[in-house]
Formats: sequence, structure tokens, C-alpha cells
Amino acid sequence: MEFKKLLEQQSEEAFKKYIPTLSIDCVIFSFHENSLQVLTVKMKDQDAWGLPGGYVKKEENVDDAAVRILKDRTGTENIYLQQFYTFGNLKRSESAFEAYDDGIWNKQRFVSIGYYALAEHSQVKLVIDEYSSVVEWKSIADLPAFMMDHSTIFDKALLTLREQLNNHPIGYNLLPAKFTMPEIQKLYEAILGKKLNRGNFYRKILRYDILTKLEESRKGGAHKAPDLYRFDLEKYNSALKEGLKGSW
Amino acid sequence: MEFKKLLEQQSEEAFKKYIPTLSIDCVIFSFHENSLQVLTVKMKDQDAWGLPGGYVKKEENVDDAAVRILKDRTGTENIYLQQFYTFGNLKRSESAFEAYDDGIWNKQRFVSIGYYALAEHSQVKLVIDEYSSVVEWKSIADLPAFMMDHSTIFDKALLTLREQLNNHPIGYNLLPAKFTMPEIQKLYEAILGKKLNRGNFYRKILRYDILTKLEESRKGGAHKAPDLYRFDLEKYNSALKEGLKGSW
Repeated sequence: MEFKKLLEQQSEEAFKKYIPTLSIDCVIFSFHENSLQVLTVKMKDQDAWGLPGGYVKKEENVDDAAVRILKDRTGTENIYLQQFYTFGNLKRSESAFEAYDDGIWNKQRFVSIGYYALAEHSQVKLVIDEYSSVVEWKSIADLPAFMMDHSTIFDKALLTLREQLNNHPIGYNLLPAKFTMPEIQKLYEAILGKKLNRGNFYRKILRYDILTKLEESRKGGAHKAPDLYRFDLEKYNSALKEGLKGSW
Repeated sequence: MEFKKLLEQQSEEAFKKYIPTLSIDCVIFSFHENSLQVLTVKMKDQDAWGLPGGYVKKEENVDDAAVRILKDRTGTENIYLQQFYTFGNLKRSESAFEAYDDGIWNKQRFVSIGYYALAEHSQVKLVIDEYSSVVEWKSIADLPAFMMDHSTIFDKALLTLREQLNNHPIGYNLLPAKFTMPEIQKLYEAILGKKLNRGNFYRKILRYDILTKLEESRKGGAHKAPDLYRFDLEKYNSALKEGLKGSW
């Protein structure tokens, strides 16, 4: 039982290094081949999959800890990251470390702060650390069983993302720099988990006034070359702060 | 220095009773005389005002702790309560307990989970506990200086409320059972901190399909008696879960 020994050895150090009671879990989304994907980790010694996470150092802001954990796992800091909810049920991690001593760090009560991240698929380098055996993107349409309350954390992240479609622009970190209307519509559909009417989508997304239509169109293919768009970053960032047009 | 002794005496008990590192702060809103108000507390021994808060017991879910703290402070559980953000900056409470020993409970590092509450003004009984000298509703248009990072916590709660106007119905816990269109418009205006066009407001709020127009109208007054509305609770609750009409 190599892994058990590792956790036991590092337990003492963890008590010294991190603030007690608090952990961080990250729901890292990307958009790839028209599917919304989430980064999952298989921890050594656990059957179920989990979300990547970590702890907060004693001399570290919580937000900085989230950035550090994300960077450790994806090799990049250049990711949209936002806190969305904190999970504090008493028994949320019960059963995860049954075979371990009660005194071990990992078996303490942790309240976990959830962050969701939007990452460009191609920019992420998957990093396997000493605690994990596999790190993998999985389509949200085909998720595995999660350990602890990680499916609750994932569900809440997705719900938050869906609700924020009404307030905030999305896509800059998920789509390529130039994209077609059908491509951004597919992103919205993947997040919402439903088909949208094409005409309504076009009208609504254009009303947000965050897209610039490019002179060029995409070459190749049998059909008429589709129009290309990019985000108007100034308007996009202003809408991130002030809310989308059509909001109250 | 009576208060200092009280905190010192209760410090040891607090270490035994509560989980470390975590506190809860509540932003309790009500709507009274056309103004959005927030419950503020003056802690003995502190010059600035603060938001009511507390800690999480070792055998208690975090959400249950929030309900308990709210009940202790307002005398009622019948309040809409929602977690909105967790505040984890290293120095967020620096300067608040300078005169105290470093070992005292209140001077530890606390990451604070923010909950906002929507309360019916008349139902709230203001409770002064042994730590506070005054508890008061204050109009959000005229707030006092806050201790620690409580103005950041308040700002984030108000921002969350504003954004949620686009996704969720609001008003059931803030308005009387029967209300006029100008009254619900004033609530929206108080939350948004801006005037809204009357015609646009009517159209948009009716499109949400959560209001029922009553047969009766309000008697008295020199002008034509205004129409009265109430929330259709079934549709209201469904919109709380599924989002408002017109959302994505």
C-alpha cells in the first residue's frame, strides 16, 4: 500500500502548511469537437473519479490558492477562473478515506470552495501529480461516477454557467479567435444541454453587441463559405463588468 | 474593559465548539418605505458597523449554521436565504482586534462565507446579543463605514442580487402579499439603484408570467384606484428553479 504511506507521511506536513477546514475544488471546462468537456482526475487508491483540487496555504489568499492549484494541474494561468459556491455539508467526504487513521489530514472535515474555469482545450497540458493515476477530459454528456460530493459540485458549476449566460458574455476562453455562428451556437447548446432555434439565437446574440463580423469567410467545403466573427474585446470586457444588453 | 474579558473568556469555548478558519456573514435585506435596507450591527468595542455573523459548529452543516445565525439575529427562520460568495483574503480582518492577544479566537484567520437574506421588514425582531451594542436597519443609500471587509461583502451581495434579477423572480419575501405595479417597480429600482422606464418595466415584468392581477383595486386616495397584483406562487417557484421566461 504505497499510496497510503505517502498520504500518511505528507499528513504532518499538510497540517503545518495549510489552513485547516478548507479545501478548493476546480471544475475546469473546455469546448472541444462541439462538446463541453470537464477535467477529471483519478486519485490513486480511489475507485471513482474526482475534480482536481487542493488546499490553501497559511499565508495565501484563497483566490491565489485557486490560481496555483489550477496552474499545477493544467500548466497554465491563462484561464478564466471564477468562484461559484462553497460546499459545507458535514458528511460530504464521508467514505472517501475509510481505510485511513482518523488523525490523517485528508480525513479531516473540509468545507470546499468551488471554482469553475474556462480553458482553451489546446492550451491545457494535463499534469499527473504524485496523488493521481489519470487526468482526463470527459464530455459532460458522458460523465463517470464521482467520489465524495463532486457530482454535486459539478452540477452547481454547470448551473452557474447556464445562469450566467443571461448576464455575462461567454466564449472568449472557449472558442477559437475566429468562429462561425453555428460554432458559437453549438457552444451555447452544449452548456444549456438543449437545441436552440437558429434564428432566435442569431437575433439574441447579435443584440448583445459583443461580436464583430469579419470581412473574410471560411474557405473550403462544398457549401457557401460561412461568415466569420470574432469577439469585440472592448465590448466583451465591458459586458463582463456591466452585464449584457437587455439585462435590467 | 468588560468586553475584552468576555471575548477572552469565551475564546477557549469557541475553539472547542466551532470548526476553525470559517465564519459566516449575513447581508439581510428588507424593503421598507420604498427603500432597500440592510441589517447592521455595532459590535461592542468596535467603532465601525458590521454585518451580523457567526461561526460553524463542529457537528453542523454550513447551511444550517447560516439559518441558526439568522434566526438568532432576527427571531425568525422564515426568510429567503442564499449563499453568494466566500471571502478569503489573508488580511481581510486585520486591524479589527489589534488590542487583543494573538491567541484569541476572534483574532485567528477566518475565511467568511457570505449569505444574503430577503426578509419581510415587519416580521424581523431585532436581537441584540452580548457582543453587540446596537442592531439597526440602514438604507443602502446611506450606509455607515463598515469594519473589516464588510463593505466588500455587502457590495458583492448587492451585485449578486442585481444579476439575479435577470434569472430569478424576486419580491415574494420583500413586498406585501398584494401590491401595485409602481410598488414592485420601486423595489426593482431600489435594488438596481436607478430609475426604470415605466412602460418597459410593465412589459418586461408581465412577460415573466409570475404575476396575477386581482379583481380588487386599492381604495382611498385622490386618484383612480390602482390595480393590485399578487405573485402566482406556483409559477414564481417554478421560475426560481427553472429560470425566468426570456432566459436562454
